[in-house]
Amino acid sequence: MSQQRIESPAFFIGRGGDGGELISFGSGQPDLPPPPEAYKVLEHFKAFKYGLVQGELALREALAREYPYAEPEDFVITNGASEAIDLTMRAIAKDAPGSKFLLPRPYYYSYPHNVELAWMIPAYTDLKKGKIDFESFQRDVAGCRAVMINSPSNPTGTVQEVETLKNIEALCEERGIYILSDEVYKDLIYVRSNYLLHGKKVITVNSFSKTYAMCGLRVGYIYSKNREIIEAAVEMKSHTSMNTSLVGQAMALAAMGERESYVEPHRKIWEERRGVMYRGMKDLGLDVWEPEGAFYILPKFKNPDRAMHDLYYNHNIITYNGEWFGAPDRLRFSYALDVAKIQEGLKRVKNFLESEYQTY
Amino acid sequence: MSQQRIESPAFFIGRGGDGGELISFGSGQPDLPPPPEAYKVLEHFKAFKYGLVQGELALREALAREYPYAEPEDFVITNGASEAIDLTMRAIAKDAPGSKFLLPRPYYYSYPHNVELAWMIPAYTDLKKGKIDFESFQRDVAGCRAVMINSPSNPTGTVQEVETLKNIEALCEERGIYILSDEVYKDLIYVRSNYLLHGKKVITVNSFSKTYAMCGLRVGYIYSKNREIIEAAVEMKSHTSMNTSLVGQAMALAAMGERESYVEPHRKIWEERRGVMYRGMKDLGLDVWEPEGAFYILPKFKNPDRAMHDLYYNHNIITYNGEWFGAPDRLRFSYALDVAKIQEGLKRVKNFLESEYQTY
Repeated sequence: MSQQRIESPAFFIGRGGDGGELISFGSGQPDLPPPPEAYKVLEHFKAFKYGLVQGELALREALAREYPYAEPEDFVITNGASEAIDLTMRAIAKDAPGSKFLLPRPYYYSYPHNVELAWMIPAYTDLKKGKIDFESFQRDVAGCRAVMINSPSNPTGTVQEVETLKNIEALCEERGIYILSDEVYKDLIYVRSNYLLHGKKVITVNSFSKTYAMCGLRVGYIYSKNREIIEAAVEMKSHTSMNTSLVGQAMALAAMGERESYVEPHRKIWEERRGVMYRGMKDLGLDVWEPEGAFYILPKFKNPDRAMHDLYYNHNIITYNGEWFGAPDRLRFSYALDVAKIQEGLKRVKNFLESEYQTY
Repeated sequence: MSQQRIESPAFFIGRGGDGGELISFGSGQPDLPPPPEAYKVLEHFKAFKYGLVQGELALREALAREYPYAEPEDFVITNGASEAIDLTMRAIAKDAPGSKFLLPRPYYYSYPHNVELAWMIPAYTDLKKGKIDFESFQRDVAGCRAVMINSPSNPTGTVQEVETLKNIEALCEERGIYILSDEVYKDLIYVRSNYLLHGKKVITVNSFSKTYAMCGLRVGYIYSKNREIIEAAVEMKSHTSMNTSLVGQAMALAAMGERESYVEPHRKIWEERRGVMYRGMKDLGLDVWEPEGAFYILPKFKNPDRAMHDLYYNHNIITYNGEWFGAPDRLRFSYALDVAKIQEGLKRVKNFLESEYQTY
């Protein structure tokens, strides 16, 4: 195999499907399908005209029932959490281009791009063992217009302490700093129930991608009690994409109807995989933080860039370079795979560590 | 009825459906459904994982067969033409925020917002009787980084002369100016076949919304031979929305398979409506340009703002204020209605003109 240099996750797209030799710890998406009802609704789907830019009322009503004290007007249905983040950041930047936007590091690899695409400037606060250190946070947030919180986190797999989140809420409320809370993994937590951040300038983004395995169908949303941001997002969306696909929204609503029977059983499947992955990595002697949510683990490697290349070219394993996530001493493994594949993958990592790793 | 002031097209959303007293010449969307095959494909739809950010290969291959000398790599599938415009403008602005972007006026009402959302500055060149005057254009384009061409035009209904378009191509090529050609009405022309603009810095946007009546399903695309813009758009989209909804793309591909049996028969329906609308307006003595494409007509009114309010509140007709489109002396009528409704609407306009119009 010719060893082309791997520059970004895009390199791996279309590689490592379900069959074949390759085991992919790369892409962060559920491997198990959405609830069957999400497809069943397609049988009678007949809409074609423009829908409300803010999103179908029935879907926003269903969401409002899931969030305490929420109303349908507090939501904007978007093309996945990605568009929710893009719209929110652009709304925040509207009257203040060039503002600083604080990102806990390691971060989801799109965040710095999102900040720059909204004509703001990324600033960073370093996590300690995957956790926000409130003292550092307090120092680093000075002069920032907004901050991103992503708990559970992609790529660290950690969940932030409720006490820290409350301290952040209070500090940001006092200083008038926007909190953009990316809670797309809120239904995949193994250590406690989700803590929904709230406050006057808190904007939550979420999606149907992880909870209901609907990544490719692109339905996400903004939830906020901040009417100004909601209105700015809707106004912007009326020019930049209009309503989110009606057929995706219909599938999302149908999926929500299966919440009871779908979400908790799937969380248990993820929790089992998490155990296999974490114990396996510990047994290999890798330095990792125990994943508390989502489906990522971020082990330390001596030379992660070379390890990623060798794991791919010599051992048929896809992993993502920690560098892409602001963690240049680590590799990101997604464990969105059945247990047998995770075990086979771990075996290959073992081979790699024993055969080659000592030599560089 | 209490007479709330009408500030934007958003006011009318959800008003004037198919039933009831109200006749809507407002929203610009086909009233007839997409080809049945677009729904049939849903029966077996089962995808849920991320797709290519650039768009499904099969759909881009089908598009490449529709455009001469095109390849699948020349396309990016987007959330409607709106996202295609947003991504393209942001790509153009990337290294040159604050650039001037030329818009022929009257313009589609989102354009100035799109330019500003991309942190550029709108500049204008006034159409003469709905047509670009090349001499004025040549003067007004000085210092601009890019220009929008929208032929057939929403809201004027006019089609630009091929000679003018060729002059613009040559001028922009010589001066290195980007042309963003919004050709979403390319399949709804009544006077000639479409002239596809081309050149090194030409970016075409199009959509399935008008040709296949799929507005609410949000599938559009960018087509360009400019690899830099295509790559910048894909890179940006990987952070701002990821792949366009796979289910929408599947419907779009199925619709394209019906091109032969669907597009030309529908064009004829639109042409008949165009005739009824145009003759009706002339008979009422209104000052209009003959629509040559799309489904809009833009008559002059003495006091269009008041006329829009009175037509709505006193005569149950929705029209759009020309002011929203940079045509403050006119009203926009969309004739996406069956002939009987168009005739009834015209009768009401007649009543309005005879009863009230003389009094202010």
